[in-house]
Amino acid sequence: MTEQTPGGYTGKILRVNLSDKSISIEEPDDKFYRQYFGGTALIGYYLLKELKPGIDPLGPDNKLIFSAGVITGVPCAGCGRSGVGSKSPLTDGWGDSQAGGFWPAELKRAGWDTIIVEGKAANPVYLWVNDNKVEIRDASHLWGKATKEVEKQIQDELGDKRVRIAQIGPAGEKLVRFACILNDTTHAYGRNGHGAVMGSKMLKAIAVRGNQALPLAHPEKVGEVAKWLRDNYKVLSAGLTAHGTSEGVPGLNEKGILPTRNFQEGQFEGYMDIAGATMTETILVGRDNCYACPINCKRKVEVGPPYNVDPVYGGPEYETIAALGSFCGGNDLKAIAKGNQICNAYGLDTISTGNSIAFAMECFERGILSKEDTGGIELKFGNAEAMMTMVEIIAKRQGLGDILAEGTMRAAEKIGHGAAEYAMQIKGQELPMHEPRGKVGLGIGYAISPTGADHNHNMHDTEYAIEGRPLEVIKAMGIQEPLSPLDLSPAKVRMFRYVVNWQHFQNCAVICCFQPFNWSHLVQLVNGATGWNTSVFELMKVGERALALARVFNAREGYTAKDDIIPERLYEAFNSGPLKDKKIGKQTMHQALQTYYKMAGWDPERAVPTAEKLQELDLGWVVEELDKTVIKK
Amino acid sequence: MTEQTPGGYTGKILRVNLSDKSISIEEPDDKFYRQYFGGTALIGYYLLKELKPGIDPLGPDNKLIFSAGVITGVPCAGCGRSGVGSKSPLTDGWGDSQAGGFWPAELKRAGWDTIIVEGKAANPVYLWVNDNKVEIRDASHLWGKATKEVEKQIQDELGDKRVRIAQIGPAGEKLVRFACILNDTTHAYGRNGHGAVMGSKMLKAIAVRGNQALPLAHPEKVGEVAKWLRDNYKVLSAGLTAHGTSEGVPGLNEKGILPTRNFQEGQFEGYMDIAGATMTETILVGRDNCYACPINCKRKVEVGPPYNVDPVYGGPEYETIAALGSFCGGNDLKAIAKGNQICNAYGLDTISTGNSIAFAMECFERGILSKEDTGGIELKFGNAEAMMTMVEIIAKRQGLGDILAEGTMRAAEKIGHGAAEYAMQIKGQELPMHEPRGKVGLGIGYAISPTGADHNHNMHDTEYAIEGRPLEVIKAMGIQEPLSPLDLSPAKVRMFRYVVNWQHFQNCAVICCFQPFNWSHLVQLVNGATGWNTSVFELMKVGERALALARVFNAREGYTAKDDIIPERLYEAFNSGPLKDKKIGKQTMHQALQTYYKMAGWDPERAVPTAEKLQELDLGWVVEELDKTVIKK
Repeated sequence: MTEQTPGGYTGKILRVNLSDKSISIEEPDDKFYRQYFGGTALIGYYLLKELKPGIDPLGPDNKLIFSAGVITGVPCAGCGRSGVGSKSPLTDGWGDSQAGGFWPAELKRAGWDTIIVEGKAANPVYLWVNDNKVEIRDASHLWGKATKEVEKQIQDELGDKRVRIAQIGPAGEKLVRFACILNDTTHAYGRNGHGAVMGSKMLKAIAVRGNQALPLAHPEKVGEVAKWLRDNYKVLSAGLTAHGTSEGVPGLNEKGILPTRNFQEGQFEGYMDIAGATMTETILVGRDNCYACPINCKRKVEVGPPYNVDPVYGGPEYETIAALGSFCGGNDLKAIAKGNQICNAYGLDTISTGNSIAFAMECFERGILSKEDTGGIELKFGNAEAMMTMVEIIAKRQGLGDILAEGTMRAAEKIGHGAAEYAMQIKGQELPMHEPRGKVGLGIGYAISPTGADHNHNMHDTEYAIEGRPLEVIKAMGIQEPLSPLDLSPAKVRMFRYVVNWQHFQNCAVICCFQPFNWSHLVQLVNGATGWNTSVFELMKVGERALALARVFNAREGYTAKDDIIPERLYEAFNSGPLKDKKIGKQTMHQALQTYYKMAGWDPERAVPTAEKLQELDLGWVVEELDKTVIKK
Repeated sequence: MTEQTPGGYTGKILRVNLSDKSISIEEPDDKFYRQYFGGTALIGYYLLKELKPGIDPLGPDNKLIFSAGVITGVPCAGCGRSGVGSKSPLTDGWGDSQAGGFWPAELKRAGWDTIIVEGKAANPVYLWVNDNKVEIRDASHLWGKATKEVEKQIQDELGDKRVRIAQIGPAGEKLVRFACILNDTTHAYGRNGHGAVMGSKMLKAIAVRGNQALPLAHPEKVGEVAKWLRDNYKVLSAGLTAHGTSEGVPGLNEKGILPTRNFQEGQFEGYMDIAGATMTETILVGRDNCYACPINCKRKVEVGPPYNVDPVYGGPEYETIAALGSFCGGNDLKAIAKGNQICNAYGLDTISTGNSIAFAMECFERGILSKEDTGGIELKFGNAEAMMTMVEIIAKRQGLGDILAEGTMRAAEKIGHGAAEYAMQIKGQELPMHEPRGKVGLGIGYAISPTGADHNHNMHDTEYAIEGRPLEVIKAMGIQEPLSPLDLSPAKVRMFRYVVNWQHFQNCAVICCFQPFNWSHLVQLVNGATGWNTSVFELMKVGERALALARVFNAREGYTAKDDIIPERLYEAFNSGPLKDKKIGKQTMHQALQTYYKMAGWDPERAVPTAEKLQELDLGWVVEELDKTVIKK
């Protein structure tokens, strides 16, 4: 294939309207793909063009977009992911999330880069994408069922075990605002409540099977990168293979940044009980991977009665370990594995779930919630039984779970009595398990992320990347010396800005950020797949463009700089540990945000790119969107 | 050598004070080189740190800095250049210029990256840099002599024909404000009048001889790029080899953008007489090159009596052909070659020389200058004899030549009677031979160039780069489609901003922009030489940093957005030719400049980077320089 023939992307976008059951195909040109790429930026293009500000995220006007990137499905580790986006029912603003597994590569093999789901079905349905054949099928018999069962049943009725399924669980059906979508029952598009959006559309699942080879412009260039990874991962990713994403728990605890008891503490006495190495030695029964990846960072765990944890739901990731563990004050790894299983079976984001439970625990301990409110549960930090119960009643919207299913921001409002102080959320989305007091640039990341609190839009560990691979990337950005994780100077803001743009690019590519790739590898992957002659400069601009689209989306919904805040608690110092008495200055943070806005070419009051910045990002058409604010917050 | 050992640069900067004859050495660290690189950025660092605003550019407080880049002297085509910088006697602001030849690589081989010349000698001197031995030697016997003679005499007295010499001619001694400095009698640091600065310091020449191998981190990576060039230049640079830099004259004429008669016209009836191909067929006797370059774009020409053009002074480049030819209305190639020889023998910038003569010709034709003023010369467009005489009397500062030696801005003020209208200059520097009415983005380039009117700070031909190599670079910037050369939309401003930053990087590298390299080649050259793992993103920031330093330097001198203008004439449409009736709208240009400032992160009134932009460029120390303006223009 010549350089002129596109490769990497399929060139076809599937649009399905569930209200009128219409199915259509769009075929954007090469320029479109090079500009919007896939994932976040492509989703941003469509959401900004097609959604009116002020629509109900759980109404038929919202759209749900699954978008793989131009290197998704390429035969190389890290290329197995897809993005999903919609207006978020948690934030009433921008929402996007990414997940791996095998579904995204299968989507590409079926000949599609992106699926746009519109409208709302009258009855439960699922989508069956069998190469070029697309069918809207009845899902009444699947409604209410857990993900494992649904996967099996769809594969059975389609008569093909190789069918890959993205689906919601009962939590999504019940519009839990932080319901997730799962690929292959274990890989979650966790954040922003896309599962609720899918549920509101009565769409249970998207089943995909493809038999088309993905065109590649220069397969040998792709092969070189894949080989480099195979040759090096055993050294570079040894910890991930051995102990999974929770390998770092002891290190975080040592630094005093293991989120504990609803961000009241930064160290957890039971940290070793929930460490990745401990999982390896106890409940681990196998390792698992995503498409084309030899690292096998995913876990399979099994626990007997009374927990009955089934390996099909995978083992808990770091976020889950911390959210259902230290954050809820619990050190029972089996209980965490069980909580993880309920989340994956019912389709709940483990981060918001654990965070919401911890919020309720603190309210309970402070007397804001009583046993009457909890239905008799002794909802104290460290009560593993209570944690497991809470996960279930959130998924089922029972009792207090029904209130928490609205997310901590809305729940706090309903609970009253000052509960809002203990809701660890930004813009309505719960904080993930990364402590900004010990890596303060992350605080900027939390505040400015268009998704609300989120760790996948700001490369959370950069501030500790003193040596090795990540610093190579930072150095190639022109930052020669590591900055203190406690530094909030303009130099840190600059580093964070670059890193945030790069992370946004990775969410467009949609590449796994755990891969030990350098910039040159990703440029080679993109060029090898597409035949383009791109540069890291252009790719950084793709990321910046994605962020710009999302910020304009939020500005239209009434968001301004006033909403770029972090919870007050994070301005308080810890009473003990290595970060004792060290706190983020509120004025310092304010100043850093102002510096960020100006550095990024954003209007410092609206916190949105200026017209000139939009034009610089080849987003001239977006300029007029700046005037479309319908909601003044 | 390992990646930790620096390569590419020598790590040594030579500082010579001619007032007290002190010589010292500075050895910046690796971070410094990666941040300031060489050429424009490195010069900017020193000029901004060490010059007080308001100093006399021709006084002892000015400094003259010769700075090679981290890939200068690397065994690859394009790597034979050096930058020179000082406060410009033309603009009373920032000045930098670049030249090739063999002197720069010799400087590196002698173990030096940069020479900073300070103070003023009591009597004429020259500098003898013989590897680590540095000597200030008497040059009284050389003062007043032409460059060819000086070169021979220095080589003779040093007893080494391989000594390379950068020198001024008599014009520099006489402080002609657009005097140049020449490497090897033919390669000129032409713009901004550095020759006058060197003259003001009584420094006739810098002779260099080196015997040290330049350390390279990865010679094989450098070798790959050198080989690629050797394998491809015969196709990619065929025109340059065959006919030199003036190969494009017929094409420019066809497009109506061959600067003619002081920008009164865009087409010249005698264009074929001055075309590169015509030179090839007539007066060409040989081709010449710069260090390590096989392209041989330099010319050797010979003309017998009465012209007596000596091949040692080289043949005229495009700029010279147009400036002394069409711009003065002349089609006599032999006369142009003679004018070129006088410029190189006396050390005059051919662009400002030709431009000044054309200015005087127009004044003469309009009756502003009389035969009395010209000393009897019939100073009309097309008078080749007059042109040659004028070159000589400018160099010698005789009669009208003495007035023109001040540059057109100052000359117009002295002449009065509305002469300023015909001075084709910006910020005091004369326009080069590129017509913005047919490539309007160049107009922005002219207006914002910190050097005043200049084509080496904005990649003048980009707007016609519809196909082939240059578009690959533009595409890798994220610009997928060529823009009309007449477009001044924000999209064009964006392209121009990227191109300007890249061109500034090339002036830091200091790489020849005629090489058909892609971005990846340059990244590989830098990494191969230095052992860094840099990226084009970082290199673009180096360029942006260089421009920022220069703009802050100008802001300190009182320059603001009000000075970012182009001559009024360029807003008038041509009466004929392909651009007939097409003009640049003045309001459109104003708007484009405002867009540029905002896109670039510049304060739109002072036209200088904001504090936040400086911080983003790792120039936090420069922020306070913004408050040091001493001159309000």
